[in-house]
Amino acid sequence: MNEIEMRFQLLIEAKNWKALKAELNQLDPHDIAETISELSKDNRVILFRLLPREQAKETFQHLSHDEQEGVIEGLAENSNKITSLLNDLDPDDRTAFFEELPGKVSQRLMQLLSNKERAIATRLLGYPEDSIGRLMTPEYVAIKPHFTVAQALDHIRKFGHNSETLNVIYVVDNQWKLIDDIKIKEVLLASPEQLISDIVDNRFIALNAYDDQEVAIKVFQDHDRVALPVTDSNGVLIGIVTIDDVMDIVEEENTEDFQKFGSIQEMVVNPLKAGIFYLYKKRIAWLFALVFMNVFSGAAIAHFEGVIQSAVALVFFLPLLIGSGGNAGSQSATLMIRSLATGDVEMQDWFRLLGKELLVSLLLGLTMAVGVSLIAAVRMPDVMLIVALTMVLTVMAGSMLGMLLPFLFTKFKMDPAAASAPLITSVSDITGVMIYFSIATWYFGL
Amino acid sequence: MNEIEMRFQLLIEAKNWKALKAELNQLDPHDIAETISELSKDNRVILFRLLPREQAKETFQHLSHDEQEGVIEGLAENSNKITSLLNDLDPDDRTAFFEELPGKVSQRLMQLLSNKERAIATRLLGYPEDSIGRLMTPEYVAIKPHFTVAQALDHIRKFGHNSETLNVIYVVDNQWKLIDDIKIKEVLLASPEQLISDIVDNRFIALNAYDDQEVAIKVFQDHDRVALPVTDSNGVLIGIVTIDDVMDIVEEENTEDFQKFGSIQEMVVNPLKAGIFYLYKKRIAWLFALVFMNVFSGAAIAHFEGVIQSAVALVFFLPLLIGSGGNAGSQSATLMIRSLATGDVEMQDWFRLLGKELLVSLLLGLTMAVGVSLIAAVRMPDVMLIVALTMVLTVMAGSMLGMLLPFLFTKFKMDPAAASAPLITSVSDITGVMIYFSIATWYFGL
Repeated sequence: MNEIEMRFQLLIEAKNWKALKAELNQLDPHDIAETISELSKDNRVILFRLLPREQAKETFQHLSHDEQEGVIEGLAENSNKITSLLNDLDPDDRTAFFEELPGKVSQRLMQLLSNKERAIATRLLGYPEDSIGRLMTPEYVAIKPHFTVAQALDHIRKFGHNSETLNVIYVVDNQWKLIDDIKIKEVLLASPEQLISDIVDNRFIALNAYDDQEVAIKVFQDHDRVALPVTDSNGVLIGIVTIDDVMDIVEEENTEDFQKFGSIQEMVVNPLKAGIFYLYKKRIAWLFALVFMNVFSGAAIAHFEGVIQSAVALVFFLPLLIGSGGNAGSQSATLMIRSLATGDVEMQDWFRLLGKELLVSLLLGLTMAVGVSLIAAVRMPDVMLIVALTMVLTVMAGSMLGMLLPFLFTKFKMDPAAASAPLITSVSDITGVMIYFSIATWYFGL
Repeated sequence: MNEIEMRFQLLIEAKNWKALKAELNQLDPHDIAETISELSKDNRVILFRLLPREQAKETFQHLSHDEQEGVIEGLAENSNKITSLLNDLDPDDRTAFFEELPGKVSQRLMQLLSNKERAIATRLLGYPEDSIGRLMTPEYVAIKPHFTVAQALDHIRKFGHNSETLNVIYVVDNQWKLIDDIKIKEVLLASPEQLISDIVDNRFIALNAYDDQEVAIKVFQDHDRVALPVTDSNGVLIGIVTIDDVMDIVEEENTEDFQKFGSIQEMVVNPLKAGIFYLYKKRIAWLFALVFMNVFSGAAIAHFEGVIQSAVALVFFLPLLIGSGGNAGSQSATLMIRSLATGDVEMQDWFRLLGKELLVSLLLGLTMAVGVSLIAAVRMPDVMLIVALTMVLTVMAGSMLGMLLPFLFTKFKMDPAAASAPLITSVSDITGVMIYFSIATWYFGL
């Protein structure tokens, strides 16, 4: 507990609400949220009650979903505060909160919204999960092309209060069809009597509310924007997406990719806060699935019992050979998954890449075979050739697998990051075992 | 090659510069950059020459570093174009270009800059690699607290042309000490006669130019800003960082973490474009290092030759057991690395997490032991107990390793993401072999 948290704790115990309010006024909403997270659930609610509306709304959106739920539950008796909080929340932040609530709870809370806000919330929640519609807010400023710059600035001053951002202004025609988005910079630098129609260049990039949020990330990264418009199929402006929400998604998506590759699914959690059974549940399914993959390597080995008994020396090199195949495979999978995710590589490039990977992995395999032959030559020269040949083939097979799996997953509309390192290791273990003992059987003429 | 690229190709062949210029005018700089990337090096330079200054500058910053170098080389004979391009570039984009050039080339190009731009470039390149200083631009608008809002807007109109952004305006005192950053929204919504000093709340978050870029990412994510000020140790404003540059870094850092975990270091490349020997070079070092790790498992197995010969059945379960340990380890490493990276977990939490992981991995190990016993019971009941006991212990050992390595790496100031999946797999292989055959030796009373 740091200094601020301690001071807050003491002030709450002393019931010194006045001093607490004064302290809260000094803090940024993000810092209030961080402090609140460290307090007990009851004290969290007490602090929250003391916050003025604007700060309450800002702080709320910085809390984790569990903390948000806790605050709402805690405030229950004081339903006015909840009502104003829920109505004050920015529509996009409200969507994020509502979408993770159990249906019953969100239905009940929805009743507290004004007719206008409820209509907005219902519309936004109507878009599919992980779609751009769920990130969208209808709170923006739109102007008409016949405005002068001075008129536009007046319009902004009058109607901009609720806008999520004023960094970008939208120009629409009488049917609310989007004509252009203009950076506020262009408005500010133009002379006051200039017409907006002289500033617009009709070059804008609009998002589709039904597209996946990954699309939004890519467009934001490529085009250096801080906000993007969302239009319907007729080009009518229906909302905007701001970069702060996209930053949150970037972090989540990357974390998800990373965790899938390490085969921990849907685990954007803080392990300090997660319960033991939750962590157990998230991990056991994958581990178990991989056991059954590994059973096949066992069965393959059992099949070759004869050759093992005649040369136990073969077993010494087993972990090394199958390990190298798996490592080469996880390297090429890493490259593939990231390249597919960043858009560097498209599905149609597959054959070109395959040829390249064949050559690269041949070189890798040959180098490793030389290395391992030197080791084998000293300790057990009779299996040296078998080991060297297996090395070349398993490294190549592993690399091909690492390339193939992410592509197949994409082809079948699955996330390529699910072609995790352990999965690739397990499959290339089986391949490695088969290659190794087949060569040995043939070599010993069994 | 898509439609636009084809049309460009044809227009270049027909030397129809006028039509080309008209086409280029229709496109967004990002799209021009994408089209240019697909053309031959010579055609790339031709197109670039046709671009007007502003578009040339914008397009240049969307090119990859190699393409940028190619364009500069290609323009060499036409040195006026280079001079204007380099002087026009935003200081932060210029830093990004210069920092990856060989020293000699950047020295030569530096001579083409005006005195003022050279001074800026030298100062920014003076900051350490990967520091916030390298992301910074000195092009912002600063106003004084005694300005009225109307005066501020006039000031912006007069001096804002070169500013990287007008989404945030900076308020400084006479010593250029930062007093506040204010969102343009607040200026736009205030009435024209209001004083700036009435708008400022003296609550701002400033970055330090010497801090790592990861710090900037974290602050941007936490605080929902589109630009942040950078101050020196006296609180004097020396530059700003905008979110578009941070978005690029986020992507890179995540890619780096991901690739380190898959043990391909420093590889933010497009595999379609990278050469075969480059790809080989980047991968062989790690693969080779891991071979030497795996040699230890081989040695460990050799040590237990006796027990293997007396029960070859043990070998059947070897891949399964060591695989499970490695998988559990790569799961816990994934969690650790990401939690350390996102700041969810701090070094001092280590002992609390260790206790938790011990419990979770015990549960995982027990579940897996039950599963594997069922398999062993059918096929070879005489090794069932050995296999079950080994499963519990290897899963626990692997999990501990997966937690320990990222922490140790952090402790010794190395990147925790370097505790890659293959490294963890290799180390837990050795541990697994030792545990397995030790138990077997003891069980058979050898």
